[in-house]
Order: sequence, then structure tokens, then C-alpha cells
Amino acid sequence: MRMTNALIPTLRDVPADAAVPSHQLLLKGGYILRTAAGLYNYLPLGHRVLAKVEAIVREEMDRFGGQEVLMPILQPAELWEESGRWEVYGEELMRIKDRHDRQFCLGPTHEEVITDLVRQTIGSYKALPLRLYQMQNKYRDERRPRFGLMRGREFVMKDLYSFDLDEAGLDAAYEDMYQAYTNVFNRCGLTFRPVLADAGQIGGGYTHEFNVLAENGESVLAICPDCDYAANQEIAEVKASPVTYPADEAALEKVHTPDAKTIDAVAAFLQVDEKQCAKTMMFEADGDLICVLTLGNDEVNEVKIQKIHPCDQLVLADQATIRTWLGADPGSLGPVGMPEDIPIYADQALKGGQGLVVGANENDYHYTHVNLDRDAKVAAYGDLRMVVEGDACPACGAQLTFTRGIEVGQIFKLGTKYSEAMGATVLDENGKARPLIMGCYGIGVSRTVAAAVEQHHDDRGIIWPKSLAPYQVHLIAVNMKDETLAAIAEKTYKALTDAGLEVLFDDRKERAGVKFNDADLIGIPIQLIIGKGTVENGEIEWKDRRTGEKQMVQPAALIQAVKAFYDYE
Amino acid sequence: MRMTNALIPTLRDVPADAAVPSHQLLLKGGYILRTAAGLYNYLPLGHRVLAKVEAIVREEMDRFGGQEVLMPILQPAELWEESGRWEVYGEELMRIKDRHDRQFCLGPTHEEVITDLVRQTIGSYKALPLRLYQMQNKYRDERRPRFGLMRGREFVMKDLYSFDLDEAGLDAAYEDMYQAYTNVFNRCGLTFRPVLADAGQIGGGYTHEFNVLAENGESVLAICPDCDYAANQEIAEVKASPVTYPADEAALEKVHTPDAKTIDAVAAFLQVDEKQCAKTMMFEADGDLICVLTLGNDEVNEVKIQKIHPCDQLVLADQATIRTWLGADPGSLGPVGMPEDIPIYADQALKGGQGLVVGANENDYHYTHVNLDRDAKVAAYGDLRMVVEGDACPACGAQLTFTRGIEVGQIFKLGTKYSEAMGATVLDENGKARPLIMGCYGIGVSRTVAAAVEQHHDDRGIIWPKSLAPYQVHLIAVNMKDETLAAIAEKTYKALTDAGLEVLFDDRKERAGVKFNDADLIGIPIQLIIGKGTVENGEIEWKDRRTGEKQMVQPAALIQAVKAFYDYE
Repeated sequence: MRMTNALIPTLRDVPADAAVPSHQLLLKGGYILRTAAGLYNYLPLGHRVLAKVEAIVREEMDRFGGQEVLMPILQPAELWEESGRWEVYGEELMRIKDRHDRQFCLGPTHEEVITDLVRQTIGSYKALPLRLYQMQNKYRDERRPRFGLMRGREFVMKDLYSFDLDEAGLDAAYEDMYQAYTNVFNRCGLTFRPVLADAGQIGGGYTHEFNVLAENGESVLAICPDCDYAANQEIAEVKASPVTYPADEAALEKVHTPDAKTIDAVAAFLQVDEKQCAKTMMFEADGDLICVLTLGNDEVNEVKIQKIHPCDQLVLADQATIRTWLGADPGSLGPVGMPEDIPIYADQALKGGQGLVVGANENDYHYTHVNLDRDAKVAAYGDLRMVVEGDACPACGAQLTFTRGIEVGQIFKLGTKYSEAMGATVLDENGKARPLIMGCYGIGVSRTVAAAVEQHHDDRGIIWPKSLAPYQVHLIAVNMKDETLAAIAEKTYKALTDAGLEVLFDDRKERAGVKFNDADLIGIPIQLIIGKGTVENGEIEWKDRRTGEKQMVQPAALIQAVKAFYDYE
Repeated sequence: MRMTNALIPTLRDVPADAAVPSHQLLLKGGYILRTAAGLYNYLPLGHRVLAKVEAIVREEMDRFGGQEVLMPILQPAELWEESGRWEVYGEELMRIKDRHDRQFCLGPTHEEVITDLVRQTIGSYKALPLRLYQMQNKYRDERRPRFGLMRGREFVMKDLYSFDLDEAGLDAAYEDMYQAYTNVFNRCGLTFRPVLADAGQIGGGYTHEFNVLAENGESVLAICPDCDYAANQEIAEVKASPVTYPADEAALEKVHTPDAKTIDAVAAFLQVDEKQCAKTMMFEADGDLICVLTLGNDEVNEVKIQKIHPCDQLVLADQATIRTWLGADPGSLGPVGMPEDIPIYADQALKGGQGLVVGANENDYHYTHVNLDRDAKVAAYGDLRMVVEGDACPACGAQLTFTRGIEVGQIFKLGTKYSEAMGATVLDENGKARPLIMGCYGIGVSRTVAAAVEQHHDDRGIIWPKSLAPYQVHLIAVNMKDETLAAIAEKTYKALTDAGLEVLFDDRKERAGVKFNDADLIGIPIQLIIGKGTVENGEIEWKDRRTGEKQMVQPAALIQAVKAFYDYE
């Protein structure tokens, strides 16, 4: 492709609203263009990279028995009512009415549609196992779309769904997809890590996220340096390590703690260690109030709360509700005297807690000498806090380390959640109807493009992994006004393209500096520079975009060298 | 692909709601599946055919300088307000609000988005010409979605947009696309016809529709047997051929015509020829009443009315409005005494009309001896009627013939409609800002799949054109329980796939009759049958799905024969 023909609108300045390198560089390099918040165009270069990711994903899905289909983006509400998700999905689901006032949504995922598809088409276990996938736009009405392709409202996903008769079949599908995803991200040239994760609104039990490691990742990963354990911080287990509390037989005492509304303020005011204080938080779980206690400044983990108290929607209770029920404000709350119908859940570190300080459910007052077993009615103790760096690995006990990642894929064991709700059964060998055992497996195709840039760039621009580069070679004619030089460049362009290589040819009548800057920004792995030297002695300068190393290549050896560069990947 | 692994849910019965062969056969053959009215899944076979059409379209777009992009499906209302289409597009536009109550639509077409894209990215004539295209779902909220993939609410389209500095550039783009479309439909193996057409809501002046000829087509095409002229009936010109009216100097006469509300009834009652009567119809054009006269039973053509009286929305006036303004009902209307601010347009055949019968704007009364020039105030005469078979070709005068077609593509010269409205300009060689000259060019990719079936099927099923077949070879093992036979089939399957051929292998343990029926239904061009004969003498039966002819092939010659079958296409 000649740059004089191509739409590659590189920018000099970083757009003000672009906060992370992938967003900045994809805009600056002319890969994407914004139409509205969270809605982007893939310009020709961006589309080429996207297509390369898609091709790799397709190959790996096909390799593991995937059959490609294409489902509607518009999904009827009736199907979501069958699964029960129409009510619980919340504001991220984009809902739309047709001219007859029927309700639809723009698919954020396709469990309902594919379960309906399969129940309509198969009836016997003989049709199993079945693995169906599609590559398609998905929709999520983010409150704050941001970071360009990383968190948009419309994005390209691959979603595969597996259907089996039994758990062993699901296990096999899950393992195959784990391997397929490993292949995909390896082939994309990305450093990544699969970690245990939360199933969120998809449901099901067991799930792994695939994270591309990058500074600007929104996920925090807890990784064991000694064993295989790796989990998203959201769900990483805290190993139970009982706290020994010094005996304190003293009776409850209500003390005045003016303006002390945080653990640190209370501990300082009362001159006790923060680990002697318990923090009390109130949540609404599907509308019901619940109380959660954690030790000192430990951060509460909402995913874990939803495990101990299963619910669809969990939100912090608001001040008005808390005041109505407890007569006090956050900062002065505590388990003592909690109304009977509000269950109290306490982190495992508080088990046997005594001599504690908690809020008195009266503004500016706390209780001291609290013995939880004696003074409060804890419904259950459990792992309710966020893991922190240095915590013990739940598998081997070594100290966990943290790193950041961008979630580019997730695989789920769904089990029978959708098939039971929607009546998707098959007859087994004995003629008995059994609900299908399902798994679902997603790759954020457009987000993978952004993640690749986050992981592969420098101050000057993008440095594409070989398999994702929009073109394999960036051919730069230093001065197209020099007829001899231009003729050599044209000849080289023809030779490279005739050899089946993908070449971006900078044939513009621009200054050399502009061309070099654009080439580094665009980030094609090999730059071939036709300059004065080429005119004089025929040699072509080869610049490796990643290392910056330059070497001179004889034209006769050029094509072989480029092919070798790409083949040994 | 082995049928034991594939999801190919063929049906025995034709679904009741499927009215045309493509809808019936695509459902019956397991190609598509309905999720809701006008919303279909492409099952594995359907997806493969769709992908083949897409690949052909991409190659031809690239050949003619197209650069592939991908624009958002969700389009902000603001852009449509700039172009003026937000208000006028009507109920087919699917509108949606995001969580912040901002308005968007699901793109039925992308003129606004691409004009915005281009005005954001280019500033100089040097970036021209530019041809950008995408392959994507489009949305149209049809009142009555029908005929499966032919008229759905979500469908796959290729849309290309051209940008040029001058009309000559647009002409070149239009010609290139005309050629590209011709190539696409030829390569798809379809018999088609480009015809002059109406621009509809896209706008612009000059446009051709590409129609696949088929009995069930919704378009009626007027075609000249002697010259190149071909046009959609909607816009086909009626050549002016003045009618000579016998002189009638008599004064207007109001006659009682009880219950005579149609031209035929009035003519019969008054014992005159229907060609002596003029039909009066009232329309609302963007809310204003207009009156249209045609001769006898000539059918009025709304597209032509919109040419003589430019407007965005044209609808038949309702009875209440007519009664308010004219004091009478449809069937008794006429131009005599029409209120001053209602313009009267008359078909060219009425020029010089005298001795005519028209409604008297009084129920059950007509005027006779009407002389239009004397008794009414006609604003303009013009070509306002539908062409009929046998009318004279407007180019050469030969008698037009009619045929039916399925519109699968349309190309438009848009001119500056969008670039002027949205301020998309470039600086020309003299540094002067000039609006871009645009064209747009669409192919209904999913509709092309349906059109191919409409044109290529028989009583037993689909007969795919070679280039669109989901697989190249349907290999049928007559009896998989026969171990020798099964082994030969397996060996043949391996040999064919190793040779790079796309093979659907019926390895099911079904009866031969079921397999043959499914194979004819699915419609792959070549059926290779491994039967008893193969076990006995090694020969494989080759059935040509189109002709039904059978021949025996030696295994050694098989691959060469299949390749030859596909190569000489």
C-alpha cells in the first residue's frame, strides 16, 4: 500500500483526553478515530491489526473443534426473561424498543441466544459435544467509557459456547479452550497470565481470566512466586491464619469519640492499635441490609461478600437508609445491638475477637472491650477481605506478589445455569432428558489490539509484535523528488509485494524526518530505508523497530531476510 | 467437516411462515435459524456461505482501491441532525438512548459517520481520491420483516464511500464500482441486471440498482429488448406521447353519479371510455396537501411525484383531511374548484385534456365536459404514472418488457449532499475550501445469499453456484456400518482434505436415503458417493447436483477431476 493513497492520518499531538499509551498511540498513529464516547472507527491500519487478531483467534477456535456461526446482535427481551437476567443485568445493558414497542437489548454476551439456538436444533446426546463461536460486536453501556479500545461501549469479541452431556465433557472443553487461549496470546506475541477470577454477571462457578501484563492494566493480579497459584485480587483467597486476641474480660464500655470516624482516627484517639478496631460496613444485597465487619484497615472484598451472602446486586447502603435503621452515620457503626433481621458477617481474622473497639451506632460514640461472641450475633465468619501483597499464597504459603494486567479473555464453566432456566435438554443414551452442561469462552478482540500496544511501545510509538503488524515491512523512500532514488524505491516495492510480503510504502513527497517519525509511530517491525547510500552503492538500510539496530542489506538478499525475520517467529 | 460433528439441523418439513424458496430452503437445510422476527442466526453452513460472499466482495473492493475500515454501529443523533436525516428518516430507523439519555441510532447506513470521519482526518485535495468501505451489520426496523434473509431487520452489508474533488472523480469512482459490482455478482454465479433506480432516503441524483433476476423478487424491472435501457419500474420513464382529445366545447356539467367511486364505475355509469376520465388523488407532502391527476386507470407513481414536488415524506392524505379541505371523499374528487393553495399536478397524458370526467368534490357527483386548461389550474404537467409492460422504451421506443429481481446492490452519486450539510471540505490546489464530492455503494451481503438460493434451487433443495457452496464436495458414505466401505470413505475424505479441498463428509450412521435427501437439500455442487460398487470395483459415483448426471470416477483421477470442476469456473 502506498502512503499517498492510504488513509493514515497520523497526528503530531497527543489528544488531551487520551490517558494511556495505547489510546494515545492508536489515535496518534492513525489507527482509530473517535465518533462518540466509547465508540471508535477502525481506520485502515487499525482494521488490518484487528483482522490479524481475528484470524489467529479463528484458527485456534477451529483447531479445537469450534464451528463459526453468527448470532443476532439484537436480542429479544423474552429470552433474557427466561434466564432471569433481564431484571438483574443493570444499566450496562443497552435496551431498545422496536416500532411495535417490543423490547430488545444489544447483546453484551450471547448465553441466552445460543441456548435458544441449541435447544431449537439438537435433541440427542449424539449431537454432542458441540462448540459454537462467533466474532462480533458486543455492547456495554459503560458509565465512563475510557482508554480508547480498552473500555469502549461497542467492541469486538469472540465468544465460544460449549455444550456437553456431562462434567467430564465440560472439563475437556475448558481445558481445550485454556490451551486455545494460551496459543492465541502466544501467537499474538503477548506476555500474559491466566488467573482465577470472578464469574460476575455471566454466572457459573469456575473461571479463569487471561491477562496481558501491563502497567496500565485495570486488573490487579496476585501471583505466587513459588507455585502455580495466580488469581485476580478480586477473588484471591486469604489463607486463614487465626489472630490471637489477648484476653479481655472487661465489660462493654461506651466512650465518647468526637469526630473520630475512621479506624485511624479512632485508634489514635483511643491510643490503641488499628488491629484492635473492627470496621463496620453496611450493604444492600438485593435490597436487604447486611452488616460486614473487617479487622482494622483491611479492605472489604465485595465479591467475597456475595459468596457468603449470595445475591445479584450488592451496593453500599446509603447514609439515609443507615440512619433510618441504626440511628447513626457511617463512622460510628458497630455490631452491638444490630437489629435482628440484619445479618452480621465478619472476616475470619475477627474470630474469637475480644477487647475490640467498634462503633456504638450513635454518632461520636464507640464501644471498647467488645467481645464479639459475647456482645454481638455474628451470622458467619469467612474470608471477606482483599488480599494484599505479601499475604500467604493459599496454595503453598509463599508470599504473594502483585502485578497489573489487562483482561483480554475469560473462560467460564457455566454448568446448567442457562440450560435449566431455558429448558435446553437432550436425551441421553437411556432416553432421559438431561440439561446441557455449558461453558462459555470470550476473547476481547479489539481490547487485545490495545493490550498489545500497552505492552509493546516506547517513547517514539508502537512496536508491533510480528504477527499483529498491519504490514510486515515499512519501505521508506527518503526523497521521492530524486528520480533515481524514487526508481529504486519503486523497484524494491514491486519486488517485495511480488514476493507476497505486506508492504507499506512511504512514497510521499515529505521530508525524511517526517517519514522516520511516522514510521516509528506506526510501529511496523522492519523499516527499509532507501536513501543516498542506496543510490550510491545499492545497499538498503534495515532498521529493527524494536531494537533500533540498523544494518545494511544487499537487494539480492532482502526478500530472503524479511521472510526469515517473519518465519522464525 | 464430518457431519457427525457438525451442527447441520436439516428439517423434514417446511416451516409454515416461510413463503419463498430461499427462506424455506435455508431453514430446511440448516443454514439459518430464527431468533425473532427479522433476526436470524447464521448456522455453520450459513456462515460459510456468507463468508464466501464477503471474501469475493472484499477482493473486488480492494481491486478498485477500496480500503477497509470498521465504523461504529451505534451512531450519535448529533451527526444525523447535522445531515438533517434524524427528523425525516421515519420509523425504520432504530433509535436508542444510552444511560445518560443521549440519543443514538443503529446504523441503517453510514453517510453521516463516514463524512464525519473524513472531515476529521483529511484537509487537502492531495488525500483524494479516497474509497473506504466496511462489512457490517445494518439495521432497518421493517414493519413486516419477511422472506428470511431477504428482508430482515439486521443484515450484513458492504458499504463503500468515495470522496473526490470533482465530478470527474466521482464519475470514475461510480464506473469503477459499477464494474466491481458486475465482477462480484458474476463471480457469485448470479444472473443479474443493473437498472436505473430511485435514490430514496440516501439522496443524491444518479443511481443504479443491481438486481438478481428471480421470480420472487420484490422489484419489477422494465427492460428494453432492443437497447441498453433498464430501470426499476418505480422510476422507469414514460415517454411523452401526446393524447389527442376530440374537441369538446360544451360547458361543465355536474352529474349525479351515485356510488360510482372508481374510474371503472364512473365510466360504466356514464358510458364513456375510462380514458375519458381523470383520476384525482390527494397526497400530503411534508404535511402540505397536493393534488395529482392521472388518466383513466393509470397507476400513479409516488417517486415521480416527489420529483415534480420535492419533499422528504409523501403519504396519501387521509379521509378526514380530505373532507376538511374539499368537503368530499376519495372517489368524488376533482381539480375543478380546488383551493388556491393546493397545487395540482397532472400526468403528461392529460395535457390538452378536454371532454373529461372528474369528481365534483361533492360526494356522488362528477363533472363532465371538463377542459383542464379552461376549468382547472394545473401547476405542472409531467411524467407521473407507473410504466407498464409494452410501454415504449424512453431511449429507443421499442416495447418494454418486465421481469422481477431481488435488489442486492445499489450505487449512488451523492454529490455534496452530506459534505455541504456537515462541512466536509478540502483545500484545492489554489487553497480554496471545496466540499467533497461523494458517492456511496452498497451490497446486501446476506441478501445475496438468499438471492443465490432463489435463483439456484429445484424441488429437492439448493443448488449452490460453485463459488458460494459451503463446501466443494459432499462425500457420502452409503453405509458406515460396513467396515470396508467406511474405511474407503475415510481414506477418500483424508485424500480430498489433504489436497486442500473443502469437504463435507456424511459419516453418519443414517440410511442412504436420508443422506441423499440431505445432500440434495444442502446443495453442494458435487456429491461423491461411496457405495457397494466402490467396495467391489473401487469406483466412486460422482453426482452433479445441478444436472443430476452421474458418472463413475477412478479414485486416482478424483482429486484432479474435482479441481478441474472448480478451476474452470
